[in-house]
Amino acid sequence: MNTVAKSATTGKQRMPKHNVHLLVSCPDARGIVAAITGFLTDHNVNVLDLDQHTDSDQGWFFARVAFDLTGCDVSLDRLTELWTRIADTLHMTWRIHDTAAKRRMAILVSKRDHCCRELLWRWEDGELDCEIPLVISNHEDLRDVIERFNVPFHALPVTPDSRSEQEKRIQELLIKNHVDVVVLARYMQVLTKSFVDRWPSRIINIRHSFLPAFAGGRPYHQAYDRGVKVIGATCHYVTEDLDAGPIIEQAVVQVNHRDTVGDLVRKGADLERSALVTGVRLHLQDRVLVHGQRTVVFQ
Amino acid sequence: MNTVAKSATTGKQRMPKHNVHLLVSCPDARGIVAAITGFLTDHNVNVLDLDQHTDSDQGWFFARVAFDLTGCDVSLDRLTELWTRIADTLHMTWRIHDTAAKRRMAILVSKRDHCCRELLWRWEDGELDCEIPLVISNHEDLRDVIERFNVPFHALPVTPDSRSEQEKRIQELLIKNHVDVVVLARYMQVLTKSFVDRWPSRIINIRHSFLPAFAGGRPYHQAYDRGVKVIGATCHYVTEDLDAGPIIEQAVVQVNHRDTVGDLVRKGADLERSALVTGVRLHLQDRVLVHGQRTVVFQ
Amino acid sequence: MNTVAKSATTGKQRMPKHNVHLLVSCPDARGIVAAITGFLTDHNVNVLDLDQHTDSDQGWFFARVAFDLTGCDVSLDRLTELWTRIADTLHMTWRIHDTAAKRRMAILVSKRDHCCRELLWRWEDGELDCEIPLVISNHEDLRDVIERFNVPFHALPVTPDSRSEQEKRIQELLIKNHVDVVVLARYMQVLTKSFVDRWPSRIINIRHSFLPAFAGGRPYHQAYDRGVKVIGATCHYVTEDLDAGPIIEQAVVQVNHRDTVGDLVRKGADLERSALVTGVRLHLQDRVLVHGQRTVVFQ
Amino acid sequence: MNTVAKSATTGKQRMPKHNVHLLVSCPDARGIVAAITGFLTDHNVNVLDLDQHTDSDQGWFFARVAFDLTGCDVSLDRLTELWTRIADTLHMTWRIHDTAAKRRMAILVSKRDHCCRELLWRWEDGELDCEIPLVISNHEDLRDVIERFNVPFHALPVTPDSRSEQEKRIQELLIKNHVDVVVLARYMQVLTKSFVDRWPSRIINIRHSFLPAFAGGRPYHQAYDRGVKVIGATCHYVTEDLDAGPIIEQAVVQVNHRDTVGDLVRKGADLERSALVTGVRLHLQDRVLVHGQRTVVFQ
Repeated sequence: MNTVAKSATTGKQRMPKHNVHLLVSCPDARGIVAAITGFLTDHNVNVLDLDQHTDSDQGWFFARVAFDLTGCDVSLDRLTELWTRIADTLHMTWRIHDTAAKRRMAILVSKRDHCCRELLWRWEDGELDCEIPLVISNHEDLRDVIERFNVPFHALPVTPDSRSEQEKRIQELLIKNHVDVVVLARYMQVLTKSFVDRWPSRIINIRHSFLPAFAGGRPYHQAYDRGVKVIGATCHYVTEDLDAGPIIEQAVVQVNHRDTVGDLVRKGADLERSALVTGVRLHLQDRVLVHGQRTVVFQ
Repeated sequence: MNTVAKSATTGKQRMPKHNVHLLVSCPDARGIVAAITGFLTDHNVNVLDLDQHTDSDQGWFFARVAFDLTGCDVSLDRLTELWTRIADTLHMTWRIHDTAAKRRMAILVSKRDHCCRELLWRWEDGELDCEIPLVISNHEDLRDVIERFNVPFHALPVTPDSRSEQEKRIQELLIKNHVDVVVLARYMQVLTKSFVDRWPSRIINIRHSFLPAFAGGRPYHQAYDRGVKVIGATCHYVTEDLDAGPIIEQAVVQVNHRDTVGDLVRKGADLERSALVTGVRLHLQDRVLVHGQRTVVFQ
Repeated sequence: MNTVAKSATTGKQRMPKHNVHLLVSCPDARGIVAAITGFLTDHNVNVLDLDQHTDSDQGWFFARVAFDLTGCDVSLDRLTELWTRIADTLHMTWRIHDTAAKRRMAILVSKRDHCCRELLWRWEDGELDCEIPLVISNHEDLRDVIERFNVPFHALPVTPDSRSEQEKRIQELLIKNHVDVVVLARYMQVLTKSFVDRWPSRIINIRHSFLPAFAGGRPYHQAYDRGVKVIGATCHYVTEDLDAGPIIEQAVVQVNHRDTVGDLVRKGADLERSALVTGVRLHLQDRVLVHGQRTVVFQ
Repeated sequence: MNTVAKSATTGKQRMPKHNVHLLVSCPDARGIVAAITGFLTDHNVNVLDLDQHTDSDQGWFFARVAFDLTGCDVSLDRLTELWTRIADTLHMTWRIHDTAAKRRMAILVSKRDHCCRELLWRWEDGELDCEIPLVISNHEDLRDVIERFNVPFHALPVTPDSRSEQEKRIQELLIKNHVDVVVLARYMQVLTKSFVDRWPSRIINIRHSFLPAFAGGRPYHQAYDRGVKVIGATCHYVTEDLDAGPIIEQAVVQVNHRDTVGDLVRKGADLERSALVTGVRLHLQDRVLVHGQRTVVFQ
């Protein structure tokens, strides 16, 4: 059995010095949790938070561990190297994120500003733990709004003919800016398979409908015509198959016969802001694991 | 201008003696509200509650008026006759419901009892203003549960071959029992077009999904596979096109990766009970107007 | 009986030219609705929307009528004069608001910007139908944030000794700017009775708790200590008795043991933004009637 | 480091044979999670589910572990004995619950049946994992309703003079029936301190208000008078201080000016049913830990 630090923290705990997140998924087996926590304790690493989920139907195990590296007997690189051996034995898919290295997030947007602006606002207020090195749009319209936040704005207009060329330039900008995660904040262009494939589970989209209802164009019009009493917005990872990516977060609100299409658009905009910010925050905190078409979201 | 009763009610109002509901829809025009309220006042009928909605996009007017017949200078039959003249001028579709005559509601159910039982319970407690002369099922299973409520239970088993014969017997039972409204409380048989056509906007179904998402079979399994973060239930009128009838009420609840299909079924059952009871109550209170595929619900 | 325009609008209705709102409350009596609608129709004024509520327990009647003045046979001033006679007969409290004259709204704020910023953003996007001639604060901190929206910012610092003096200067600014409605967007100073008395039902506050729970200081700390599972925010009119004013809107969200006080503050900020914007919008649309400590909110 | 079973479960996992729940709270320290999981793995016990929470502000650690005893190298009694040594070292408060031994739950009720009936219904449907050996009431009214569920019903009428005598008889009945948990399903008598002290964190009450708002009598009338726009119900453990016990669950719903006190009572009844069933289910699944006036609820 592992030894345990003898002096219990009796007062208010100090803030951890150096937080690291470990995300794991693997076939379920006996002793996985003990293996993970034992490994960390053996290296004098303190587990701050452990969230674990076993999908019994699929026989799959998922975990998120937040730990404090302060006091660890080896470097994070070496710890990772040692970890790899255990992870291999258990057929794990895993990733380790050192929170000391801030993620770099790019935002793509078209003409409507509400989602992009909400993200920038939260980021400015320190709510989103990342850097935002650039915003890219296929229109000039939002330059002023974006530049108010002191974030570089790149307008890359697109025509049916220039689509692949424009996408290539976006890729170049993302790579040049060392971007880790891309957010489509009501970006109204469909990305190609090759683009999407380069950013697996790292492109986050906000969809203005309660997926899978009302896929396709003009979802609020569809919702109005169908006469639903609840509308929604869906934050999901982008996959090749449009509107079918793994869902991170959905927000809903009641509507009624008094709501015009315009009202649905307005109420929906609030849902979009809320669902997107929540989804992005969860991603940045390493709380989302993708498994097939589903997500495990540790809250 | 209409004269107004001079003595204002200053204290607590007595309960009205004889409530009548008028539901109206027609092309929008100037003065409709005044026409309705003027007519009623001219006959010394007191408007208790007036709810009105104009759909500007479609140029259509809807209203629900609750009024007290006590003190009316003519009988309800005569009032209706006089009303018809005005209604014709305004190209109105309308109906008048005398609340003194309780509606007669039949419930159709299969093997799962939660929706039927919730309705019977509410009805027993006096929450649903109707009579329930019978419950019909295609199985024997729920006889004991239903008969606890002192409601006659009819089991009409059905095979692929006997479907039209069984439906015919249902029709006969409904007619013989002077039924006004039919509730499908998780009745797992599809009704034929001819059956549905005989009960326009008078068959209420509870659908175990957030329509239009997950139409078709096993919606909770579909929801699980898709990985949605919100599930729902939909109470709607039955039309020929399955799952496309006008929606009266939808209820939703958040779910997450920890929820198995079984959990979705359990949480969904609560939504089904809630949405169905609400939908049925609204219908019985004459608060629902159907217009195309949409409903106007005066709450 | 009133005559009715013969030509029904069969196609899509044009937008009304000149909207006016009438808000009425009075002791309940027979024929009030007919009196109102008959009067308007007699003057060739088209009722666009009528919402009415009778509180049977208290014997009180409330209504909101939106009508189109285009085609009216008299001026609005004359119409109001004629209306007064009817209103007097029925002992009505009422007000008429010509939407052509935009309301002038002042915002008071302290150091936290989220509520003020949300209002300014919505206003900039055309969602709030008003003018915002000024923002007043007891601190300098938010000058930059506010001035980004091209709204004049006045910092009026206050000390315990200068409180009445500072309040006097606020009054002067409000009057000089012809302000109709004052919004306290997390303004952390208590207003005096004499100030409040000058703006009856015209000062709107956002309270960072689900009133009446957690009145007094530091409500999120109180909520954390009590261990509630739901937190809320309350938008209400300001009255002399702090935290006791008539409630316009409340928003709530679930929380759990993982939420620190900081999380409650963050989640609560979202509720505050949402509840305040909704409350202000309802006020600006003349949808709120105050009756004692309660409000009638026509949605 | 702990060894890990080498053969990963690749297919669908079998249902565990013998589930045990361990609940732990203690001062935070390094290595607690590893200590717990290591201990279990050392005894060949498989961790099925581990949920852990560290309250950094208070420096306190909480965990719930569900494990499968099948294959354990010692009996549960011996495992518990060995566990005690570790727990003592870490200054833990803990309990172990063998799910093979069903809990025995008593329900106390007065005249309103909705909460009691909902519990019995769920229990009959197999949703609540417990035995219900008896229902006790201070009135005869609900005998028929309860006995329908084949549960013994005891009416113990009470007068101001007989209060302590009646409570004593309740205690005797509970003890005689080996009751583990007591549910107050709208039981309208205040229990004495001595009664409450005998069942720490084992008496669950449903309160018909959103605590701490509207403590005291007639909360729906209070809510109506105050004009709130949201009402709630609160499920909590009973402590000596009425209405101040640790909250397990709260449910809320929007209301508006159209809702009479009667409507609030009806809507509230739905919340009470829902919050109570959820609270009881969480308790029966060993998901609730009490810490001071707050609860940690592992969902």
